[in-house]
Amino acid sequence: MNHRFHTRVCDLFGIRYPIVQGGMAWVSLAPLAAAVSNAGGLGVLGTSTMTPAEVRQNLDMMKDLTDKPFGVNISLISPTVEETVQIVIERKCPIVFTAAGNPKTYAKRLKQEAGCTLLHVTPSPRLAQKCLEAGVDGLVLEGWEAAGHISADEITSMALTPLVREFYDGPIIAAGGISTGRQMLAAMVLGADGIQMGTRFVAVKEGNSHPLYMELMTRQDPSYAKTAVYCKRYHPGRALKSPIVNRMVEMEMEGYSPQEIQALRGLRRAKFGCIDGDLNEGVFPAGMSSHFVKRVMTCQEVIDEIIGEAERELARVSAWMSRPTAARDAAENAQAAE
Amino acid sequence: MNHRFHTRVCDLFGIRYPIVQGGMAWVSLAPLAAAVSNAGGLGVLGTSTMTPAEVRQNLDMMKDLTDKPFGVNISLISPTVEETVQIVIERKCPIVFTAAGNPKTYAKRLKQEAGCTLLHVTPSPRLAQKCLEAGVDGLVLEGWEAAGHISADEITSMALTPLVREFYDGPIIAAGGISTGRQMLAAMVLGADGIQMGTRFVAVKEGNSHPLYMELMTRQDPSYAKTAVYCKRYHPGRALKSPIVNRMVEMEMEGYSPQEIQALRGLRRAKFGCIDGDLNEGVFPAGMSSHFVKRVMTCQEVIDEIIGEAERELARVSAWMSRPTAARDAAENAQAAE
Repeated sequence: MNHRFHTRVCDLFGIRYPIVQGGMAWVSLAPLAAAVSNAGGLGVLGTSTMTPAEVRQNLDMMKDLTDKPFGVNISLISPTVEETVQIVIERKCPIVFTAAGNPKTYAKRLKQEAGCTLLHVTPSPRLAQKCLEAGVDGLVLEGWEAAGHISADEITSMALTPLVREFYDGPIIAAGGISTGRQMLAAMVLGADGIQMGTRFVAVKEGNSHPLYMELMTRQDPSYAKTAVYCKRYHPGRALKSPIVNRMVEMEMEGYSPQEIQALRGLRRAKFGCIDGDLNEGVFPAGMSSHFVKRVMTCQEVIDEIIGEAERELARVSAWMSRPTAARDAAENAQAAE
Repeated sequence: MNHRFHTRVCDLFGIRYPIVQGGMAWVSLAPLAAAVSNAGGLGVLGTSTMTPAEVRQNLDMMKDLTDKPFGVNISLISPTVEETVQIVIERKCPIVFTAAGNPKTYAKRLKQEAGCTLLHVTPSPRLAQKCLEAGVDGLVLEGWEAAGHISADEITSMALTPLVREFYDGPIIAAGGISTGRQMLAAMVLGADGIQMGTRFVAVKEGNSHPLYMELMTRQDPSYAKTAVYCKRYHPGRALKSPIVNRMVEMEMEGYSPQEIQALRGLRRAKFGCIDGDLNEGVFPAGMSSHFVKRVMTCQEVIDEIIGEAERELARVSAWMSRPTAARDAAENAQAAE
């Protein structure tokens, strides 16, 4: 357990690779989370779209599917958040990610009563500061490139981690726009201790996404702009371009009110897409990195590919260390000129 | 000339550091471009807002101010593009960046008649492909984080360089959201051979930006979201939040038509901001990385700081090479367990 990408995030969770699977609506059930954990990452149950009974079922399944650490993601704006928090406390789940809403509301209870390691998923430095005040053990920083609900602050991954690193020394997991080993290493150069990926874990053999969702995710688009942000004026979201998403973007362009667009957005559009595979009525959440998702693989293959690529990139740039620093090179040039 | 960040971009231009100053409207005159070139980067005259007489004047000034290579940036949608191209050909300017519009229109003439090294500034892989068909010698890839006119495709720096690297092996200069050494190294991990910065070169002692522009650029904002994108539906632009920019964003939210917003946008708003320092009527172009611009420095100080930081980051991550690869670590662990 001392390879090149072993970081304090590995120690924090007790995992081999600092790669966390994002807790996604509808498609982060026990089989996916267990497969990620068994492959050396951290699988995460996404409870935001689960009933309390389903949360219990999935926690039961995890016992059979893996003996490795895994996390539970709780959306603080879910209508069943109170029940989910109660289950997590009863079961003493050791790793919890909260997302959306104010981390303060449940942080103390979760940390004291479940005794868990708690991280909050945040898209902005401002909210990151509130998370730290609430006493989290680490941050998932989700850049604007991410899938699903994204921040109106629109801070991208190139800026977000360095911004938060200015005031926070603890564990940071970078998310948003990251699907390759090269992007993982770039995120770590920017100051992250690990990465979280959602999009890349949609099109995996162990996932429960509808085959059409996986096909759309892996389809190569000559425009190189597979995703769009819709409802920019009211809880923006990012998803693959599809009839409904395109229509919401058009309505925005045509000056429809947020209320009119929200009426079309409705509820459960993501279920129609992710689970039912309904091309016309569904929304298919996806991050900007979806272009790099080229085929359906196992979670182990995904993680091995990413670590291998990150290792090759690290070796490539590390070779530059054999050359002098700029200051030394200048001094040597000056001496040679004398 | 063999330090750690010497790349083929240095060879392409004959410069010491792979740091290019972006050709900005109004504030890329000869004193700034010469200072960047003298500091070891590549200074660039931004001609988009210059009259033909001013282009000649600035080229004349460059002769007195530096003996180092420098570039000329030509906006292909400028009303005086034809005259500017003619001047560049007459003077045989050796390094030209074209931006906006279709690179094909002038690529052949510039390359054959001026004999220049030609790069085009592009925000999308699709346009990058057109640039390559037009015969450019390299690409400046400008992520959505950039200042000024940005692409409706909204592809960020974390995605853009890796996307283009899939089909292009030649020189890539990454731009957009890059103002620090850590971000420079991240861009190079993503596949770039160098970086272009505009925002960071606004608040420099050799610049002609109005003091208010420099002050706004270096002012720390507790929201961490200093910039906004306005006119999202029609030639989007990124600038510091200011009364006019905020009003344009509000109008968009309130459902005003693109024509109504364009009427407010008007012309020369950037001049009112950058040159006149008019807080109420001006627009102050700025990239997302403006948060990292903390004080007014000389160009030499900026470049030295960035190279120094990139060297420290490189040393930090290169230290990981002393540990085994994941595969070897797994094999060793397996052997130890036997």
